Amino acid sequence: MTEKPLLQTLRRMGPSRRPFWFMRQAGRYLPEYREVRAEAGDFLALCYNPKLAAEVTLQPWRRFGTDAVILFADILLVPDALGQKVAYVEGDGPRLEPLRDAAGVAKLQLEGLERRLAPVFETVAKIKAGVDEKTAVIGFAGAPWTVVAYMVEGGGSVQFAAPRLWAYRDPPAFQALIDVIAEATVRYLAAQVRAGAEVLQLFDTWAGLLAASQFRQYCVEPTRKIVRALKAEFPSLPIIGFPKGANAVLGDYARETGVDAISLDVQVPPAVAATLAPSVALQGNLDPLAVVAGGERMTGETGQILRAIPAARHVFNLGHGFLPETPPAHVEALAKMLREWKQGE
Amino acid sequence: MTEKPLLQTLRRMGPSRRPFWFMRQAGRYLPEYREVRAEAGDFLALCYNPKLAAEVTLQPWRRFGTDAVILFADILLVPDALGQKVAYVEGDGPRLEPLRDAAGVAKLQLEGLERRLAPVFETVAKIKAGVDEKTAVIGFAGAPWTVVAYMVEGGGSVQFAAPRLWAYRDPPAFQALIDVIAEATVRYLAAQVRAGAEVLQLFDTWAGLLAASQFRQYCVEPTRKIVRALKAEFPSLPIIGFPKGANAVLGDYARETGVDAISLDVQVPPAVAATLAPSVALQGNLDPLAVVAGGERMTGETGQILRAIPAARHVFNLGHGFLPETPPAHVEALAKMLREWKQGE
Repeated sequence: MTEKPLLQTLRRMGPSRRPFWFMRQAGRYLPEYREVRAEAGDFLALCYNPKLAAEVTLQPWRRFGTDAVILFADILLVPDALGQKVAYVEGDGPRLEPLRDAAGVAKLQLEGLERRLAPVFETVAKIKAGVDEKTAVIGFAGAPWTVVAYMVEGGGSVQFAAPRLWAYRDPPAFQALIDVIAEATVRYLAAQVRAGAEVLQLFDTWAGLLAASQFRQYCVEPTRKIVRALKAEFPSLPIIGFPKGANAVLGDYARETGVDAISLDVQVPPAVAATLAPSVALQGNLDPLAVVAGGERMTGETGQILRAIPAARHVFNLGHGFLPETPPAHVEALAKMLREWKQGE
Repeated sequence: MTEKPLLQTLRRMGPSRRPFWFMRQAGRYLPEYREVRAEAGDFLALCYNPKLAAEVTLQPWRRFGTDAVILFADILLVPDALGQKVAYVEGDGPRLEPLRDAAGVAKLQLEGLERRLAPVFETVAKIKAGVDEKTAVIGFAGAPWTVVAYMVEGGGSVQFAAPRLWAYRDPPAFQALIDVIAEATVRYLAAQVRAGAEVLQLFDTWAGLLAASQFRQYCVEPTRKIVRALKAEFPSLPIIGFPKGANAVLGDYARETGVDAISLDVQVPPAVAATLAPSVALQGNLDPLAVVAGGERMTGETGQILRAIPAARHVFNLGHGFLPETPPAHVEALAKMLREWKQGE
């Protein structure tokens, strides 16, 4: 039924062509994005504005002909909609009132979640209506550990010591928070699928900070539950996991969570990932800095990745999101290379 | 000849007992350290003061009976001694005037390096004179990539984008900087050994940020050269590598660099590391936050690690340095557990 290359690859149906899209393909490096962003006001206002969020979602697809668009939103919309309000301070990232005890967990409001997140689902519907029949619509959420990391820390951090320490000191309260976010995530993602999302990605950006035992408990387990719940409702829905930094245990993650594909960060050599996780599709993993640099280094790194992963199980992407200083002309050159690439070159 | 458990393990001679020491075992969590630090003035002044640096090096050994002491110094003494002056801003980490072009590399002063770093070697000699016949003296340096990351960025950073981008844009100039630091590191470490260091550790704290091709070029290659140069002069000297975050490629790192042991970060499960890198000794990898938490979580995590790695190839340690909020009583309890542990428990 489907002719979308991304869906063919994720279902391991042997695509006619290796699909590609780019993490953070909608963003500040595009002048047309900066215009819409200025019109919207602040970053969260843009996320909650279906017309403008759909517009910025579609901009890079129009420019570069990617095989997928990914919903423009933020992983912290979930805590925001649960009642832990999020603010974005320009140049300083997200700020939240830190949540650090069981009383804080009890205050989170699961009831009415879908109603408060309704603008996001409206964005998904608009995107779906805006793309052609070859383009897949990707929905996403942060994985519970990464969302909880921000909720407990109260913002960004190098080490996210506060959430990791709380997990050691009071495992039941911390687990309760993980469980609430896992449930909210299932409901949030299911509503995205009902609105038109055809693929989902779970971003576990800070997975690599977890000690081995915590990784199993707070990354693998909740991801497994989310995947199982979503697949029960949508059996053919492909789900991509991105356990950033957890490269020694990619195989366990793939086997135990049930994801269809793993998005690889820049650090893991694609051939190593292909061996560690033989049963899933792989997405990635060009260094976004190589695109800032452009030229032969960019095309050289890209060629190495294309040669290292068989086309039938590969979705070309970055290993992390585009940086604001990325020249759009470099992205155009990269997209051209990907469209024209013949396996064997 | 040697009866030091740490040296026996690193030489794979089957120790009578599993040795242990702790990264950042000398530091702010100890009240006696804070006293000496106040006396010294700023952090760098303490590093360059042999009497006081030797005193803080020995403090945790006296308290906890560790099997090793590690020189109290800083990985940025090398750029400081090469002429790129380093300042420590209280609560804000190191600051350097960023070095970002070939002219900056040309200004670095290798000549006279050992003279400018002489206080460090004097510290090593004092430490050696201060420990007993069962305790090993560890010298250390930052690995070239990590030192260069600070030199180019001008301080700490989450992503260290500046050095990674420079490496893509101007590989020859960046390689020249890596080469200068590698040479300085060999001279610095050789002088530490002549002063009494019996084991060396190379800290590559930011190895996990490098894309796969950069990892090979800027982490593995310079480490291999440093190890080869030092082993040529000191054939039986054990060297521990710590390529933090590079867990998918620990096996390549172990094989290609020639290190005798790998220090594991908190993320990699010890049993996975033992499989990936079967030929070397392993050091690590208790989460320092588990020591802040203390109690059953600390002893539980410790027990898991002790059961996962055979005693004959294991140096117990942390996966990262102690945090300032670590209660010394928890460290005492941990040291007691390690001394009393019987394999098979």
